[in-house]
Amino acid sequence: MALIVQKFGGTSVGSVDRIATVADRVAGYRARGDDVVVVVSAMAGETNRLLALGRECAAGGAPDPREMDALVATGEQVSSALLAIALSDRGVPARSLLGHQIRMRTDAAFTKARIRTIDDAPLRRVLDAGRVAVVAGFQGIDEAGNITTLGRGGSDTSAVALAAALDADLCEIFTDVDGVYTTDPRIEPRARKIARISYEEMLELASLGAKVLQIRSVEMAMKHGVAVHVRSSFSDAEGTLVTEEDESLEAIVVAGVALDRDVAKVTVRGVVDEPGLAAKIFEALAESQISVDMIIQNVSEDGRTDVTFTVTRGDLESARPIAEAAIGETKRHAVIFDTDVVKVSIVGLGMRSHAGVAARMFRILGDAGINIDAISTSEIKVSCLIDEERGEDAVRALHGGFALHETRNDG
Amino acid sequence: MALIVQKFGGTSVGSVDRIATVADRVAGYRARGDDVVVVVSAMAGETNRLLALGRECAAGGAPDPREMDALVATGEQVSSALLAIALSDRGVPARSLLGHQIRMRTDAAFTKARIRTIDDAPLRRVLDAGRVAVVAGFQGIDEAGNITTLGRGGSDTSAVALAAALDADLCEIFTDVDGVYTTDPRIEPRARKIARISYEEMLELASLGAKVLQIRSVEMAMKHGVAVHVRSSFSDAEGTLVTEEDESLEAIVVAGVALDRDVAKVTVRGVVDEPGLAAKIFEALAESQISVDMIIQNVSEDGRTDVTFTVTRGDLESARPIAEAAIGETKRHAVIFDTDVVKVSIVGLGMRSHAGVAARMFRILGDAGINIDAISTSEIKVSCLIDEERGEDAVRALHGGFALHETRNDG
Repeated sequence: MALIVQKFGGTSVGSVDRIATVADRVAGYRARGDDVVVVVSAMAGETNRLLALGRECAAGGAPDPREMDALVATGEQVSSALLAIALSDRGVPARSLLGHQIRMRTDAAFTKARIRTIDDAPLRRVLDAGRVAVVAGFQGIDEAGNITTLGRGGSDTSAVALAAALDADLCEIFTDVDGVYTTDPRIEPRARKIARISYEEMLELASLGAKVLQIRSVEMAMKHGVAVHVRSSFSDAEGTLVTEEDESLEAIVVAGVALDRDVAKVTVRGVVDEPGLAAKIFEALAESQISVDMIIQNVSEDGRTDVTFTVTRGDLESARPIAEAAIGETKRHAVIFDTDVVKVSIVGLGMRSHAGVAARMFRILGDAGINIDAISTSEIKVSCLIDEERGEDAVRALHGGFALHETRNDG
Repeated sequence: MALIVQKFGGTSVGSVDRIATVADRVAGYRARGDDVVVVVSAMAGETNRLLALGRECAAGGAPDPREMDALVATGEQVSSALLAIALSDRGVPARSLLGHQIRMRTDAAFTKARIRTIDDAPLRRVLDAGRVAVVAGFQGIDEAGNITTLGRGGSDTSAVALAAALDADLCEIFTDVDGVYTTDPRIEPRARKIARISYEEMLELASLGAKVLQIRSVEMAMKHGVAVHVRSSFSDAEGTLVTEEDESLEAIVVAGVALDRDVAKVTVRGVVDEPGLAAKIFEALAESQISVDMIIQNVSEDGRTDVTFTVTRGDLESARPIAEAAIGETKRHAVIFDTDVVKVSIVGLGMRSHAGVAARMFRILGDAGINIDAISTSEIKVSCLIDEERGEDAVRALHGGFALHETRNDG
């Protein structure tokens, strides 16, 4: 007998038949005696339909964000009520619960609110009465009682936050993939499902993990020590357990290889080394809410400086005039933009104790004839910016070179 | 400058274009300085779509009524948010408000809840801030914070209740017809739109009025003295003002003619006059929640009694075994069911002071060769049960006979 929080994504509740499948699964947990809190997303496609309606009513203007939240929150309300109906129909007492009913308090940042507090009392009452609590994910209320939403993928965050508030034994995230892989199986067919991975590695594997698990939910799970089991809603197979690091996980040098295609490179070339130039550029970018990922600054032979940084491709058009304005309009400056790059990364807790992992990565890429454009490293990750055309080759080379297709405990 | 509550039905907010038309109209009221509370129904078709989804998830069983309410309440939430978005886009500050946000407290009778109290403070705050309050109709919350709905057409009731709570100057019900008519214009093309009608007449014209205005909302308007203007959302023409009776209204003998086709007749024949037989039958029907409309009891020549009563056609199948069980199984009893009847009624405040109105009705029907099967009367209404095939003829004969096509103040 355990207390389990289960989250089902939009595909898992995308039709009446699929809701029936979810209800059967939840009924099975209840039959073996578990207490269950289910968190649901909107039925697949519903959130986009509602967003489109809202934009249409704004007739091209920016729709009022408070009202957009009130609008899209109905998607989760519908699926939570439907699942509660399907459970009741199976003789499993259930209650749908909305953000205002579980008092999921957030800040007032409409469309991207952050959870502040959850009152566990309403949920406990439902569970103590022997009922399944079916919580509408993605939504909360601010101090004034306005409906807020947590941003795309927010239902994962709802589920982890509820698991933390209830001190649940496990948080299961049911989704349309069956776990986290050593790399994208569409690129490297020998990619292997990872049985256990640390929060830190999961965060660093963002570009892999984002398809599987919302990054903010991993941060929250790490903060509160919530064990998260990512698994398929279409099978009973074990998925990937995201958990605290322990000795067995630390022994692994490289857990996975990630490819991030959403990268654009900006290089400010031929700049005379001026104190504060970098600060000037990056302050201007930050003011415009543009996130900069890698930053590399080199001094070239003639004493001039090249500053290279990367942004997402979506931010590139906004970054261009800001970078140009920041460096001024002298002829000695030039800004070069490059969207033909991708970022390949290796991630693993073991890097902290194993020397030479970065060198081995460069060697593997070099042997494959892949040129490295820029490098950045963190404690458990090494990333290389390379030519876009060689991105998939690099993934395969690194996956093989670090023997990730073999069972994981090989160091 | 006035405080006006406006209600727009499902057809009036049935598409993005129609929501834009509503927003333009509301913006016009704001421009002339009125404070406006708008109550909206779900977009046309949406409630039925949601009900169908809910029933599907119950897989043929009866869906949990609490969850059905949480489900269908999303329809009004969507349209209120969309209208608020459209208003904001026109530079008219607006806020959508849900049942829990305006603290519209109801009893816990899911799917047919009744309003108990409304806290006007949240609405006043929105109005005092210069905003239009866009309230999701049809929904409230019970004492435990569960979402409830007021039953079909409940948005009319929401609007009148809000007008009463706010002591509004007027409650406008915008709908897809342009007012209340002396009779159904599809039956009698000379039917005339009524400019003013009393609450009492409106209630008695239920079978006409139900298409225009929810009966419960008329009861509530009468109780609180709220003036209700029923009008078209597709034109600026004046509709029908439902209001307290005054001398001009009392001078009118017949305000309208109504035809109710949803009638079935049950006759218990050849019953030896037993004390308590009628009570036995009607108690049994009441226990099964079957409403009885007309009741007629006659003693025939041989000392036996015929008891005739009417129910809705939907209730007939349930009424049959109950009536049979109540009279027992002796050969001297017989129960006869008849669904080939309709009820034609004339309604008017002036009947109270004008003698002979019923006699005039019977004469008009007699002259038209229409046989009267049963009669019942109230203070301001006379109803006759007649052959279904002659229903429309009866309406035309009475409309002409009482000269309803002429202007109303002709006594």
